[in-house]
Amino acid sequence: MANTFVGIGGDAAGMSAASKAKRENPELDVVVFEKGEWVSYAACGMPYYVKGAVDELDDLVTISPDEFRSERDIDLRTNAEVVAIDPDAAEVTVDADGDTYEQPYDDLLIATGASAIEPPFDGLELDGVFTIHDMDEADAIEDYVTQHEPETAAIVGGGYVGIEMAEALSARGADVHLYEMLPHVLQPFGEPVASVVEDHLREHGVELHLETAVSGFRGDDRVNGVTLENESVAADIAIVGVGVSPNVELAAEAGLELGPTGAIATDEYGRTNVENVYAAGDCAEARHVVTGDPDRVPLALTANRAGRAIGQTVTGDPTPVGDIAGTAIVKAFDLGAARTGIVDEERAREAGFDPVSVSISAASRAHYYPDGSELTVTLVADREGERVLGGTVVGREGAKRIDTIAMALHGGLTVSELQNADLAYAPPFSPVWDPILTAAKVLDGKLE
Amino acid sequence: MANTFVGIGGDAAGMSAASKAKRENPELDVVVFEKGEWVSYAACGMPYYVKGAVDELDDLVTISPDEFRSERDIDLRTNAEVVAIDPDAAEVTVDADGDTYEQPYDDLLIATGASAIEPPFDGLELDGVFTIHDMDEADAIEDYVTQHEPETAAIVGGGYVGIEMAEALSARGADVHLYEMLPHVLQPFGEPVASVVEDHLREHGVELHLETAVSGFRGDDRVNGVTLENESVAADIAIVGVGVSPNVELAAEAGLELGPTGAIATDEYGRTNVENVYAAGDCAEARHVVTGDPDRVPLALTANRAGRAIGQTVTGDPTPVGDIAGTAIVKAFDLGAARTGIVDEERAREAGFDPVSVSISAASRAHYYPDGSELTVTLVADREGERVLGGTVVGREGAKRIDTIAMALHGGLTVSELQNADLAYAPPFSPVWDPILTAAKVLDGKLE
Repeated sequence: MANTFVGIGGDAAGMSAASKAKRENPELDVVVFEKGEWVSYAACGMPYYVKGAVDELDDLVTISPDEFRSERDIDLRTNAEVVAIDPDAAEVTVDADGDTYEQPYDDLLIATGASAIEPPFDGLELDGVFTIHDMDEADAIEDYVTQHEPETAAIVGGGYVGIEMAEALSARGADVHLYEMLPHVLQPFGEPVASVVEDHLREHGVELHLETAVSGFRGDDRVNGVTLENESVAADIAIVGVGVSPNVELAAEAGLELGPTGAIATDEYGRTNVENVYAAGDCAEARHVVTGDPDRVPLALTANRAGRAIGQTVTGDPTPVGDIAGTAIVKAFDLGAARTGIVDEERAREAGFDPVSVSISAASRAHYYPDGSELTVTLVADREGERVLGGTVVGREGAKRIDTIAMALHGGLTVSELQNADLAYAPPFSPVWDPILTAAKVLDGKLE
Repeated sequence: MANTFVGIGGDAAGMSAASKAKRENPELDVVVFEKGEWVSYAACGMPYYVKGAVDELDDLVTISPDEFRSERDIDLRTNAEVVAIDPDAAEVTVDADGDTYEQPYDDLLIATGASAIEPPFDGLELDGVFTIHDMDEADAIEDYVTQHEPETAAIVGGGYVGIEMAEALSARGADVHLYEMLPHVLQPFGEPVASVVEDHLREHGVELHLETAVSGFRGDDRVNGVTLENESVAADIAIVGVGVSPNVELAAEAGLELGPTGAIATDEYGRTNVENVYAAGDCAEARHVVTGDPDRVPLALTANRAGRAIGQTVTGDPTPVGDIAGTAIVKAFDLGAARTGIVDEERAREAGFDPVSVSISAASRAHYYPDGSELTVTLVADREGERVLGGTVVGREGAKRIDTIAMALHGGLTVSELQNADLAYAPPFSPVWDPILTAAKVLDGKLE
């Protein structure tokens, strides 16, 4: 009898694992349970669907359920929810179409993802108040905007989703108010990025309410305002994007160990503490390349990569899921903002380093070449050993250069090694000293 | 008495060294001899001046001679040519304004650069036949184009200069013919880049004559054609860009050792075989990060970086000049084409490796996000040890991602380590798997 590989969750990690496993071993039975309708979709693209930059919600689907079934021979079961895992019996319990049944596995992948956090706000149930973490929500937001043409929008939370939805709803004609409890937006990116982004958001007409706590929403059936401590501001639509929490209940009930971040603890192969049970994607931890500690960074590449590696491992070719650097990039109107590793001295000290950092601004192209713009680069290093710990890049063009810093982290480079990296130069693409090299030069000076 | 640091040559390497040395030790006497008028200019910007994208030739000058003298306190002597070096006496002989004098040094930097190769063509002396390797030539070309409005242009050589001048003269209204002796343009970039660039050049109306030897130019006073083996093609202007050769005569006459490439041999600190004599920039070799062997890659960053390091070394802080990877990028109309390290299997075998390579094409952005384009990525690795040896990137956007591969070379990463690099993803900037990661995935598959 062929072995069976079972996946719980049909998005990035689950379908990457299923596809890779089946490709490596066509004899393997591969079964994936997805509790909803949608599989293998680009959640990161949803704000652009709302914005109108992507025509159809279906465009965000990379591979359809039917293609998985017919072309990849994966037994994909949608609207089928795994409600229990029994590691001793090596089986899962499934609710589907009103029936309940058991599905045995030889190897199991938990890829249950994460859910949008719903803060204890009044009025969350009002029409026009949304989180945006799955395709149905994206669809509902788009419908609502089309139907009601909101004049004002309240975005609660200044993270990726908040920034992207500010752009999207602004493009749809709304006056956008963005509420953030902390002193700055984009908290994971550090202050130098945040202040550039904040100025830019304001230039684009977004009204920022920093250090402002929202307590809820008001309205009758439909939302018409957001409630703050001492006032109420009009809002015809509200988006709550205050982060996600990993979906770990199923795993925890089955006795799987959770790590310090609250996500499922895994080793370098994505294995949990229970034999033949793996976890990957937004519900799982991964090892941080700089600290060597477990971390939780719910991003698409991490999920895809870990899923694919696990698909390889379960077919007999043990493959590490790879370390994460927390590399991320976000578009804010005309800006790109990017981060990798440890982005400021405070966080570096918390991780046990003796940090030094710089923030510089430099042109994205040769000074005389047309249409360049300013890039702000932050670099953080450890005084001891002078290793690069992380950094950020923000500007109108060139934010993807963050990958250069990410590669320095993966290579374990010192500041002086980064400074001596032979990066590409021609006037239309960069100054002679790429802004990242300039930042490394200045940081190297501070290390002496 | 203060020590004296003397530089020969007032461009990237020379002025970087002088500036850094003076900054580190204001007591040092710093003297730079430049045989021409222009110092510290961006030769790479000259095609864009001819094109009309840069208004003034002076815009290409980063720092003027007067600023070097008054603000940086550097004794910069223009129109002053060093005609001999006497290492035993530790002095150089200078010709300036009809006078000849000796200048003693404690440390000497040879930064004499390179010169455009002039092939043994007939008619090189005709009006309208140019090389483009210094500011006076750029000025003369611009004048000539403005005055004569050439209808047809002949570009001899399909390297950086040829490609950039094809774009420039096309923008100025000329029908451009590009002549290349080899089967492909951009020889250092390998065939996958060349074929993309060649298609693109043709789309932009450039007539390519590959595997075509030019024997000379015809015309009375002014050029009116280019002579091939069996025919003659009309040309109202001709640019010869067939490469550069290092200016090493002065060094060789003084007994300095040349390396295998014909440029001045140096160690990791830019020192020549003669005590207290350094060499940097287009006239000097540097160590290649992949092969560990001396190489000559006359590019601006290498010159700036080595100059700066030597400026630091001569003030008592020994600083390596850094390895080179031969990283380069060039704009060809709407394309960017980039390379780093060893770009094809043939060259890898010549360097003693057992190579394997892939070439893939992938989207620059998420498939559903507007305005993405195709990127072609080539990666080369060694079967033994599976280390990345180099690669290329070409496409309408994102060619600067070559830096990611360059960083893999500097970090000594294997293909599987590159594949697991945590690079930045968001739909407007990249697919989930950056094209470079996709190339690494495919290459990793070939290594198994």
